[in-house]
Amino acid sequence: MNIPKTSFPRIVIIGGGFAGIALAKKLSKQEVQVILLDKNNYHTFQPLLYQVSTGGLEPDSIAYPIRKILKDFPNFYFRLANVESINHQDKLVNTNIGELNFDYLVIASGSQTNYYGNSEIKKHSMAMKTIPQSLNLRSLILENFEDALLTPDLNERNALMNFVIVGGGPTGVELAGALAEIKKGILPKDYPDLDTRLAQIHIVQGENRLLYGMSNKSSEKAEKFLEKLGVHVWKNLRVTNYDGTTVTTNSDVSFETATVVWAAGVKGATINGIDAKDLIGPGNRIMVNEFNQVKGFSDIFAIGDIAFMKTKKFPNGLPMVAQPAIQQGRLLGENLIRIVKKKPLKSFVYKDKGSMATIGRNKAVVDLKKFKFQGVFAWYVWMFVHLFFIIGFRNRIIVFINWVYNYIRFDREARLIIRPYKKSHKS
Amino acid sequence: MNIPKTSFPRIVIIGGGFAGIALAKKLSKQEVQVILLDKNNYHTFQPLLYQVSTGGLEPDSIAYPIRKILKDFPNFYFRLANVESINHQDKLVNTNIGELNFDYLVIASGSQTNYYGNSEIKKHSMAMKTIPQSLNLRSLILENFEDALLTPDLNERNALMNFVIVGGGPTGVELAGALAEIKKGILPKDYPDLDTRLAQIHIVQGENRLLYGMSNKSSEKAEKFLEKLGVHVWKNLRVTNYDGTTVTTNSDVSFETATVVWAAGVKGATINGIDAKDLIGPGNRIMVNEFNQVKGFSDIFAIGDIAFMKTKKFPNGLPMVAQPAIQQGRLLGENLIRIVKKKPLKSFVYKDKGSMATIGRNKAVVDLKKFKFQGVFAWYVWMFVHLFFIIGFRNRIIVFINWVYNYIRFDREARLIIRPYKKSHKS
Repeated sequence: MNIPKTSFPRIVIIGGGFAGIALAKKLSKQEVQVILLDKNNYHTFQPLLYQVSTGGLEPDSIAYPIRKILKDFPNFYFRLANVESINHQDKLVNTNIGELNFDYLVIASGSQTNYYGNSEIKKHSMAMKTIPQSLNLRSLILENFEDALLTPDLNERNALMNFVIVGGGPTGVELAGALAEIKKGILPKDYPDLDTRLAQIHIVQGENRLLYGMSNKSSEKAEKFLEKLGVHVWKNLRVTNYDGTTVTTNSDVSFETATVVWAAGVKGATINGIDAKDLIGPGNRIMVNEFNQVKGFSDIFAIGDIAFMKTKKFPNGLPMVAQPAIQQGRLLGENLIRIVKKKPLKSFVYKDKGSMATIGRNKAVVDLKKFKFQGVFAWYVWMFVHLFFIIGFRNRIIVFINWVYNYIRFDREARLIIRPYKKSHKS
Repeated sequence: MNIPKTSFPRIVIIGGGFAGIALAKKLSKQEVQVILLDKNNYHTFQPLLYQVSTGGLEPDSIAYPIRKILKDFPNFYFRLANVESINHQDKLVNTNIGELNFDYLVIASGSQTNYYGNSEIKKHSMAMKTIPQSLNLRSLILENFEDALLTPDLNERNALMNFVIVGGGPTGVELAGALAEIKKGILPKDYPDLDTRLAQIHIVQGENRLLYGMSNKSSEKAEKFLEKLGVHVWKNLRVTNYDGTTVTTNSDVSFETATVVWAAGVKGATINGIDAKDLIGPGNRIMVNEFNQVKGFSDIFAIGDIAFMKTKKFPNGLPMVAQPAIQQGRLLGENLIRIVKKKPLKSFVYKDKGSMATIGRNKAVVDLKKFKFQGVFAWYVWMFVHLFFIIGFRNRIIVFINWVYNYIRFDREARLIIRPYKKSHKS
C-alpha cells in the first residue's frame, strides 16, 4: 500500500465515523503511525441524513473530507479502501487495494441496516444509513409525486403518495415529521394539479411507544407532535414483509405503498476474520472489555457501534449512537499511548449526555440526565447541539443558513432529482 | 398527460434552461396555458458547473427546482419528460410519458456536447454540460489522486495526475484555472505522501488564442494568468483522438493521461420531427427568423442555444450562452401574447452585454461594449454578475458564503466522492 515503515508503532483504524475520527484526533501529535481506512473519502454526519432525504440540506453539507480532518497531523495516512478481511495471526488487514500490516488494529466499522434476514424487504425498501442511500430516497420521493400526476389509476396514485416508515426510533420519527411538513408546506404549491391531501405518512413501531430508548414523556409528546402533523402512528405492530407493493404486518393491517423506508434496526458491520461466533454478541457486535479490547486479543480493539460493551445501566450494550462512539474513540486514543508507554489502561465509563429527537418545526423532545423537556426550547437545543457536532466551520454555516431559510420560508429547496432512482432500478 | 383542456391557447415549452425559464416567467400572468417539459426537475445554472467539478460549490446550490419557479403562476403545468419527437402536422409532442398537443410549440432544448463524430473521444472523455456529468468529473479527479498514491508505476502515476482539457473557451479556461489552484492549494495538504508537483494541467486550443470569442487583450491576459498558475497552454493544436490512455493531436504532441475533459464545442440538441436538413443550420441549430419562428412554421419557435439566428455582427449565429437565450425567451413571451391578441410581432435585437471569464483567485477578464478590463476588479465583476443571475435567494447566499470561505481559506470543501465514477464504469 506504499506506506513507509517507521520506528513508530503502526495503528490501523478501520472506519472514519464518529469513533474512528475521535480516535485519530486524539492520536494526532503522538509518536505513532496512524493509517485510517474508509470506503468513502468523507466522514458522514449521520444524524442529519433524514434532512438530505427530505431536501432540507444538501448532501455535501453533512459530509467532510477525511483528508482535510487529518491534514495537519504528521505520521497520518488515509487510504480509500474496502476492508475484506483481517488476518489476526499475521497481523494483517486485507483490502481491495492490497494488504497492510499493523501493530495495533482498531475496528470502527460501525453498523449497517438490519433486515433481520428478510431479503424481500431488503430488496424493495429504502435505507438511510449513507449519503447515496439518502439521495436515492430523495429522488424516489420526488419521482413518486411526478408519477402520481400521470397515472389515471387512483389506487396506483395513492400507493405512490403513501409513505410507510418502519421503525419508531429517532430516524423514523424525524423522517416522518419532515415528510409531514413537506406534505403540508410544499406539495400543495409544487403540485397544484394533484390532490396532495391523499398523501399519507405511516410510521410503524413494533414496541408499545415511539422513541423506545427515551423517557415515557418524550415518547408521548413525540407521538402527539406527529399526530398533530397528520402522521399515522402505529404501535405494537410489526412489519412482516414488503413485496414492492404491499406491506404486510403481524396483524390484519396492511399498506399499499410504493415507498417503504426501513429504519427498524441496525447491526454491527463485522469483518471476516474477527467474526468467530464467540466474539460476536447481541446485535452482531464484537464483544469488547472495558478497554475496548476485542475478547481474547490485546492488540485488536473495537469502538463505536461495532463494539458490544455491557454496562450496568446498559446490559444489552451501549446505544449505537454518536456519543459512546466519540467517547470510546477518545479514551482509546489515550489508552493506546499508555500501551506504547507501558502504562496501565483506563477503563471506559460512559457519560450519558442524554438523547433527543426533532419532530418538526418548533417540535423536539430532549432527555437530559436531570431535565426532560419538549417543544420549542427543546427544538432550539436540538439545533444547537447538532450544529455544534457537525465537523467543519463551513458546514456549520451552510447548515445554519439552510435551517434559517427553511424556517422562515417554510421551504426545502434541495428537492432535486439529480440521479433518478427509479430509472436506474427499472432494468 | 392528464392536463385539462381550457379555452386558453396552449403553449408547450421544451426545456427549462435559461431560454425556457425566461419565456415561462414572461407568460406567468397571461391568458394562456403553459406546459413546460424538461428531463430534469430542476434548472441548472450552467456557467458554474466547473466549480461543482472542482469541489468549490455543492451541486444543489447551482440547481433550482422548476416547480418552485412556476409555483405562483396560474395555468402552468410542469412535466418531467423526455421529448422523443415532434409531429408538427398533428401538432403533437411525443414523450416518454405520453403525447401532448399544442397550439404553439417552443423548442428550448439547448445544446449538447459536440464530439464531431469521434466515438472514441465520446466514450473516454468527460463532459461538463450537466450536474451529474460535473459530479462524475469531481469523483474522477479525486479517485485519480487516490489511485496515484497506490501505484508504484511512475508512468501510470503521471497519467493519473495529468489533466488534459480540450477547448480554450470559457469552460476550458475556467476549469484549468480551478484545477491549477487545487494543485497549488489543496493537493500538497491532502496528499502529503504524494509528489503533487508531478500533477500537470494542459489546455489544448485549436485556435491561435484562448477565449476566441473575446477581445485579443482578454485572450492574452487569460493565457498569462493560466501560465502564472502553472497551466500548460497549447494553441493551434487540435486533438484528433483519445483512446483512454493517449491523447493524439494533429502534430507530434501527445499526452498520456487518465482524464480528458472535452470542452471543445457544443451543438444544438435537435429533436426528431424538426430536424429536416433544410431546417438545420450551422452547429446543428434550428434556423429561425427574427421572431424566433422556425423556418416554414408560424406556430413553432426555437429559442436559446438551439436557435440559429443570423445577425450582422454574428453571421454564424448568436453565441450559445445565457444572454441571447434569456433575451429571446423574454421577447418571445411578448410576441406570443401579441399573436394571441392578433398584434404584429416585434423583431429580436440582441443586446450584447459583453462576456467574461474567470481564471482563478483575483483573476478574470471582462469585455464590455465600451470597457475591457482584466485582473482583480474584473474578478469582482465576474462574481457579482454570476451571483445576480443565479436563480434563488438561498442559492445566492450559499454560493456567496462558499466563495468567501474558499477565498479566505484557500479551500474547496466539497471534495467528496459521493458516487464513485470509476467503480460504476469498470464493469
